[in-house]
Amino acid sequence: MSDTPDSAVRTYTEQHRAAFLDDLAEWLRIPSVSAQPEHDGDVRRSAEWLSAKLAETGFPVTEIWSTPGAPAVFAEWPSDDPDAPVVLVYGHHDVQPAAREDGWDTDPFEPVIRDGRMYGRGAADDKGQVFFHTLGVRAHLAATGRSTPAVHLKLLVEGEEESGSPHFRALAEQRAARLAADVVIVSDTGMWDEDTPTVCTGMRGLAECEIELHGPGQDIHSGSFGGAVPNPATALARLVAALHDAEGRVTVPGFYDGVAELTGTERALFAELPFDEDAWLRTAASRATAGEAGYSTLERVWARPTAEVNGIGGGYQGAGSKTVIPSSALVKLSFRLVAGQDPDRVQDAVRTWAEAQVPAGIRHRITFAPATRPCLTPLDHPALQAVARAMGKAFEKKVLFTREGGSGPAADLQDVLGAPVLFLGISVPSDGWHGPNEKVELDLLLKGVETTAHLWGELAAVPR
Amino acid sequence: MSDTPDSAVRTYTEQHRAAFLDDLAEWLRIPSVSAQPEHDGDVRRSAEWLSAKLAETGFPVTEIWSTPGAPAVFAEWPSDDPDAPVVLVYGHHDVQPAAREDGWDTDPFEPVIRDGRMYGRGAADDKGQVFFHTLGVRAHLAATGRSTPAVHLKLLVEGEEESGSPHFRALAEQRAARLAADVVIVSDTGMWDEDTPTVCTGMRGLAECEIELHGPGQDIHSGSFGGAVPNPATALARLVAALHDAEGRVTVPGFYDGVAELTGTERALFAELPFDEDAWLRTAASRATAGEAGYSTLERVWARPTAEVNGIGGGYQGAGSKTVIPSSALVKLSFRLVAGQDPDRVQDAVRTWAEAQVPAGIRHRITFAPATRPCLTPLDHPALQAVARAMGKAFEKKVLFTREGGSGPAADLQDVLGAPVLFLGISVPSDGWHGPNEKVELDLLLKGVETTAHLWGELAAVPR
Repeated sequence: MSDTPDSAVRTYTEQHRAAFLDDLAEWLRIPSVSAQPEHDGDVRRSAEWLSAKLAETGFPVTEIWSTPGAPAVFAEWPSDDPDAPVVLVYGHHDVQPAAREDGWDTDPFEPVIRDGRMYGRGAADDKGQVFFHTLGVRAHLAATGRSTPAVHLKLLVEGEEESGSPHFRALAEQRAARLAADVVIVSDTGMWDEDTPTVCTGMRGLAECEIELHGPGQDIHSGSFGGAVPNPATALARLVAALHDAEGRVTVPGFYDGVAELTGTERALFAELPFDEDAWLRTAASRATAGEAGYSTLERVWARPTAEVNGIGGGYQGAGSKTVIPSSALVKLSFRLVAGQDPDRVQDAVRTWAEAQVPAGIRHRITFAPATRPCLTPLDHPALQAVARAMGKAFEKKVLFTREGGSGPAADLQDVLGAPVLFLGISVPSDGWHGPNEKVELDLLLKGVETTAHLWGELAAVPR
Repeated sequence: MSDTPDSAVRTYTEQHRAAFLDDLAEWLRIPSVSAQPEHDGDVRRSAEWLSAKLAETGFPVTEIWSTPGAPAVFAEWPSDDPDAPVVLVYGHHDVQPAAREDGWDTDPFEPVIRDGRMYGRGAADDKGQVFFHTLGVRAHLAATGRSTPAVHLKLLVEGEEESGSPHFRALAEQRAARLAADVVIVSDTGMWDEDTPTVCTGMRGLAECEIELHGPGQDIHSGSFGGAVPNPATALARLVAALHDAEGRVTVPGFYDGVAELTGTERALFAELPFDEDAWLRTAASRATAGEAGYSTLERVWARPTAEVNGIGGGYQGAGSKTVIPSSALVKLSFRLVAGQDPDRVQDAVRTWAEAQVPAGIRHRITFAPATRPCLTPLDHPALQAVARAMGKAFEKKVLFTREGGSGPAADLQDVLGAPVLFLGISVPSDGWHGPNEKVELDLLLKGVETTAHLWGELAAVPR
C-alpha cells in the first residue's frame, strides 16, 4: 500500500493547476497533425516542445526518437530504489486533423477554457492525457518527499498514432532494451462517464481479411448467360451469409479456440455500470442492438470476438442498371479478437473456411493485413488493482472496470516487451475525440494528475 | 403453302447480289451511332438513306418518325389481296460505337468484303438484317409475278436500339394504329451457327430491382460497435444468399407461378443442336456451368427464369482497410422472366420476399425499373411453322429452334399490338456484335433474302 498522503497530493496539484493548464494550452497550440504532410514540421515541433517540458519537469533523460515518419519522444526517470519496478507510460503527441469549418465553435488550435473544460484539438486525445503525467510525477515527489519516483519511470510518446502507427512496432522492436518494463501504462483511453471512474482492462485484437472472388473473365451479359454460370457476387454473398449462425456466432471452425471467457465477477462488475441502451444506440447511430446470443451489448463489444463486413463490392454500382454478371466481387472483413485468440491461427482458420465456401468455377484470392493482438489484464492482477486503488483515492469513489472494443498499438508493447498492459485514461465519451469541439474536463484532468501521483507508490508497493 | 418457285428466288437474288451489297456498304458508311451525340446527324442521315432506299425498292409509303431521341423509319407496302395478313418487320438502323483503335483490322465505317464476309459496324447488327428485307420482297415479287406482296408488309426500323430504346414503347403506343399487324417479325437476332439454320421462338423478359439497406446513420467504428448492432452489408449478403435454394431455384414465393414449362418436343429439338459446352464456356469467359438443377445449359439460359446479382456494394472498397460498419449497402438484381410470368406479379413477389428478409434495426428501400415482358411463340404456331418452312427452302436443311436468353423491345410490340412475335435472323455468333471486326456472312445474308422471299407467300397461305 502507498503511503502518499492524499491531501498533500491534492494540495500540490491545486497549487500548480494554473501553470499546468497554461503549459497544456501552449502544447495544444502546436497543430501536430500527423496525417497532413504540411504539418510535418509541427509534429516535430510538438516532439521538441514535449521533450523540453519533460526535462523541465525533472526527467533526467529525454530523447527524440526519429522514425521513417514522425518522431517519438522518450523520457526516463530512474528511481533511487534499485529494486523499484520499471513502468513504461505510453501516449501520443500527434492529433487528428481539425479545421474551424468542421463545426468548431473556436479555433481548434487556439485552446480556450469555458465551463470548466479546455477546448482544443488534442485536449483529450491525447495531449491532455499524456500531460497529466508531468504534474503527476511532481505531485508524487512533493507529497512523498522523494527526490526520484518510487518506480523507474519511462515515457514513450509516439507521433503517428492518428495515422495508424505505421512505424511503431518497428520502433518498439528496435528500442526494446530501452523500453523494457515490468508494466505498461497506456494513457490513451477513457473512463465510463464523468461520474463513474473506471479502469480499462483490455482491448480487442484485429485480423483483417480481403476476399476476392473471380468468375467470368470480364463482365458478361446476364441475359445471354444468366442462370447458367456461377456469379461471383452471389458466391460472395453466400460466403458472407455463412459467416454467422442463427445465434450470431462466427461459424469459422476453430475461431473460438482459446477465447478467454468472461468471469462471473467481471460480468457482475460490467452490469454495475450505468448503461443506457438508448443513449448507446444514439452514439452508434443505430436503431437496434444485435449480436451473439447470451451476451449483453457491453459484453459483445468488449469481450466477444466478432466478424464484420467493412466493405463489399462487385459489378455495377452506378445509377440505373446494367445487366451483367460481374467478373469479380470482393469483401473486406475484420475480425475483432479477444484474449486467448491467436491472430495467426484465426487467419489460418478463416482462410481454410473461406476456401471451402468457394464454388466450382470461381477463383479466389484471400489476403490478410498485419494483425493486432488482443490484450487483457485479469481483474485480479496486482498491478491492475494498484491502478484501481490509485484512481479510487483520486476520485474518492468505487472504481469499476471496462474494456475497449477497438484495437491499438498498445498490443505491440505487450508483444514486444512481454509486459502486462494497463489502461489509465480520464477522458469521457463526451470529449469528442476526432470530432469538432474536442475538450477535456479540467476536474477529470486534475484527477488524472492525482491518480498518477498515487499510482507510482501503489505500484512500487506491489509484491514482485 | 407457297407457290413461289425456289429456283426463281435464287436466280433473282444472285442476279441482284452485287448491287444489293453495294447498297448495304453505302449504308454501313453512315456511322449511325445512337449513343454518341456527335453522331446525331449521322443517325438522321441513316434514317433518310433507308427511307429513300425503301421507296426505291417499291414501298409506296415511307415515313421518318421523329421521337424525342433518334428517328425511326416506317414503310408500308399493302397487298392487292385485301384479306392478306398484315406483317410488321422490326429492326434498327442505329449501331454500336466503333473505333479503329478498339481492335478493328479496317475502318469500321468503311466496309470491306473479304473471304465471303462483309466487315463493318452494323453489318450484322442490324443493318444487314434489316436490309435483306429489301431484296427479299423484290425477289418475292419477281418469283411470283406479283405486283404487290402476298402480305400487307410494314417495316419499323428504330434508331435507338443500341441506346436501350428509351422512346420505343411510347412510339409504338402512339403509332399503334399504323403498326397494327397479325404477326411481328423481328430481324435482330441470329441463328445457331453457319451450318445450323434455326428460328428463335422467344426472348426472356426482365425485371430489375435495386435493394438498399440502411443501418447506422453514418459509417461507425467496427471496434467500438462491432458485434452489437446490425450490419447492413451482412444483412444484404444474407438476403442475396437466401435468393436461391440448394437446387439453384429462386426461393421467392410465387416466382415460378405461371411459368410455361418446356415441352418434351422443344427439349428434344434443343438437344439436337450441336452444343459444345467447352466452346460455350469460352464465350461466357467462365470456368464452369452452374444453375437450376434438372435443366441443360441451353434450357437454363433460354427457358428458365433466373435471379442474378448485377452489382453489389457497401462500405469501404478502396485499397487497404477501413474498420467500419457501413451505413448502407445496395444490391442490383435482375430477374429474367419466361413466358407465363407476369412482371408486375414478380415485382410484387420480390418486394414482399425482400422485405421479409430485412432484420430489425435495418431500413430498406426497394425500387424497380420498368420491366420487359417475356415473349414466346409456341412451336406449333402456324406463323412460326411458316417461318421455319421459308428458312428450310432457303437453306435446304432441317430448321431447328432456339430462344434468346436476353430481353428486347420486341416484347413492347407484342404487348402494344397484341400480335405474336417471331424472330428471323441470319446472324451467327462469330459475327462479333458490339465488338471489333463485326461482319456478316454473305452467303447467310443472301439466305436471309431468300427466306423472306419465300416467307410472305408462306404466311399468306396460313389459314387465318
